[in-house]
Amino acid sequence: MSRIVMKFGGTSVADIERIRNVARHVKRECDAGHEVAVVVSAMAGATNQLVAWTREAAAIHDAREYDTVVASGEQVTAGLLAIVLQQMGISARSWLGWQIPIRTDAAHGAARIADIAGHVLLDRLRQGQVAVIAGFQGIGPDNRITTLGRGGSDTSAVAVAAALKADRCDIYTDVDGVYTTDPRVVPRARRLDRIAFEEMLEMASLGAKVLQVRSVELAMVHGVRTFVRSSFDSPDAPQTGPGNLPPGTLICDEDEIVEKQIVTGIAFSKDEAKITLRRVADKPGVAASVFGPLSDANINVDVIVQNVSADGRHTDMTFTVPRADFERAMEVIRSAAAEIGYEEVSGSADVVKVSVIGIGMRSHAGVAAQMFKALAEKGINIQAITTSEIKISILIDAAYTELAVRTLHSLYGLDEG
Amino acid sequence: MSRIVMKFGGTSVADIERIRNVARHVKRECDAGHEVAVVVSAMAGATNQLVAWTREAAAIHDAREYDTVVASGEQVTAGLLAIVLQQMGISARSWLGWQIPIRTDAAHGAARIADIAGHVLLDRLRQGQVAVIAGFQGIGPDNRITTLGRGGSDTSAVAVAAALKADRCDIYTDVDGVYTTDPRVVPRARRLDRIAFEEMLEMASLGAKVLQVRSVELAMVHGVRTFVRSSFDSPDAPQTGPGNLPPGTLICDEDEIVEKQIVTGIAFSKDEAKITLRRVADKPGVAASVFGPLSDANINVDVIVQNVSADGRHTDMTFTVPRADFERAMEVIRSAAAEIGYEEVSGSADVVKVSVIGIGMRSHAGVAAQMFKALAEKGINIQAITTSEIKISILIDAAYTELAVRTLHSLYGLDEG
Repeated sequence: MSRIVMKFGGTSVADIERIRNVARHVKRECDAGHEVAVVVSAMAGATNQLVAWTREAAAIHDAREYDTVVASGEQVTAGLLAIVLQQMGISARSWLGWQIPIRTDAAHGAARIADIAGHVLLDRLRQGQVAVIAGFQGIGPDNRITTLGRGGSDTSAVAVAAALKADRCDIYTDVDGVYTTDPRVVPRARRLDRIAFEEMLEMASLGAKVLQVRSVELAMVHGVRTFVRSSFDSPDAPQTGPGNLPPGTLICDEDEIVEKQIVTGIAFSKDEAKITLRRVADKPGVAASVFGPLSDANINVDVIVQNVSADGRHTDMTFTVPRADFERAMEVIRSAAAEIGYEEVSGSADVVKVSVIGIGMRSHAGVAAQMFKALAEKGINIQAITTSEIKISILIDAAYTELAVRTLHSLYGLDEG
Repeated sequence: MSRIVMKFGGTSVADIERIRNVARHVKRECDAGHEVAVVVSAMAGATNQLVAWTREAAAIHDAREYDTVVASGEQVTAGLLAIVLQQMGISARSWLGWQIPIRTDAAHGAARIADIAGHVLLDRLRQGQVAVIAGFQGIGPDNRITTLGRGGSDTSAVAVAAALKADRCDIYTDVDGVYTTDPRVVPRARRLDRIAFEEMLEMASLGAKVLQVRSVELAMVHGVRTFVRSSFDSPDAPQTGPGNLPPGTLICDEDEIVEKQIVTGIAFSKDEAKITLRRVADKPGVAASVFGPLSDANINVDVIVQNVSADGRHTDMTFTVPRADFERAMEVIRSAAAEIGYEEVSGSADVVKVSVIGIGMRSHAGVAAQMFKALAEKGINIQAITTSEIKISILIDAAYTELAVRTLHSLYGLDEG
């Protein structure tokens, strides 16, 4: 017997027929003798409608009221799924964030989970009752409903799994797992059977959209084995994969991964813009004069590259910001021109960040060198580079995205077949 | 300065534009220096959609889950109205049933309010904050959401007014008050400026649809002065009526009504069916043998008339049941034929109950005699009669409804002009 948390997103619960399909997935796990908690999102479209109403009510509005309105979507799904499960003869009840409770901090609209009273749920699971939990929501210190931000149901599911010390958290999604890269760009991309937490964290942070970054962080911190699988699988299909799992990707501790690849995947993000300052004074405090104003304007700076100074007095500095903040960032830099002291500022939104990720890189040298050589052979110019222990990210012209990703995918032996 | 509870139904909050209109009504009362609590229903159509989903999920379903799903409608409206009020510069916050809390019994789907923590709301009202309360909902002894049954927001509003010791509970509805009878039947029907609690209770119980019977009961028990007014009034129109009230009807203690009429109104209900048993044994226990099985089948019996026995051994018995239960009631009676012992059962759904209501009847004899005479002159046959201290109800052939109501309306001097 295992204890399993199952999470279903909005498309999987878009109408009662699909909720019935979800219930059949749940029934299969119950029939196999598992203790089951289910975390659900709002029915597809519901959250968008609720958000639209809050915006129509007032462009800028009280985040506490926003949370009260928007959290109702998951409340509806939880109740409906409980009804459908009961009709199938399965003992089940819905749980709202405030009922368990799932305690969060006070950051309405983007709250972080502080504590989940797992024993309340465990008592019921042990009695054979399925807990159907409204995702995306909790209760703040002010006794009001909080929400975790868009896509927060993934985070709810992993947090519940951690609180229940579940054997696994199954994320049912519209893809059947995590791929070596985006299959729309590289048709020969392979589904990974397993990926380490650290790798998945980099993949999610660097552009792979399968899971919320925060949910992966949480899974890593608490060691929650997280299994990404397709919600379109027939609920009645035999679970024939390794460990009686169907096709999908298990995100787990690297110790669980026997055959480690040097490179596990290639991520890319088009959501970047590059800004370059020429001939900035090369002296202490200059970085603060550049990034202070950007931080004040709530703009996240990602890659930062500062060349070694040629004359010992001036340097060039390049950094990236989210594409949506590009224009605003340029203005901030221009307004701060006097304090910073640069000769020229230029920028471009036509850049892409391509990242090569793999825990095997820790123990293998030469990955970066191979990468630079292969891209040079294709005539792709690298505009900036950053590295960490398990990833190398480069900034290139967006026009070369597909070529670069395919080249690297082949280079590191990730192509299928 | 007064303390006022304002209640708005589903049509009044059907979209953001109408919610803005509601907010303007609230603002007017705030600007006049009043402490204001607002009780809201779900946006028109929302509850029907939610109910339809629960039915699609399972025809027979857990009332606790039903409540969880359906109560979300009022949650959404409360949050949206709070946002709109804030945008108008009015301090406001939403309150859900479990947050105040509004404690109810455990009868999910048709719960009764047990207690409201009024001091929580009062603290805020005294600070000048408008309390926007989700109607129709509370929290049960099991810490789960309960709902009060359809139309329960009226009951929520009156209960909140009682808990806050409010000076008045204003019910904004799609009619501009309580009329002497249904104006669609009697174009010369008059709006009543005031009506006593007891009269309103009879009017509501006997067919007038302006207010939920339970809300009137509650208003009577707690002496909550309840004002029925139109939600279509311009929020900016001067409040020029008596006591600075606009056109509408004040439901109040009879002491507040100076000029008491003998008859205040005529109610009628087509939602009736009549069943007659011929030659029932006239002996102790026979009533129990008839009404026991009906009660077991959850069928409410209303008017009961038992003729004096002619031969001392047999009698005829007539009673009414809700029209929707007519077929089922006939079956129950037929299955119990052996225990009851009757010669013949007959029934008809073509009946209407017409009631004449007025607290003045207590001190005036002859009201019934006048009534029977006037109807006889029109050739209307009375099939059954029941009376109470302040009302006379008769059962007649449905075809005569309009004729009877108009005749009685004129007879008691209720016609306009």
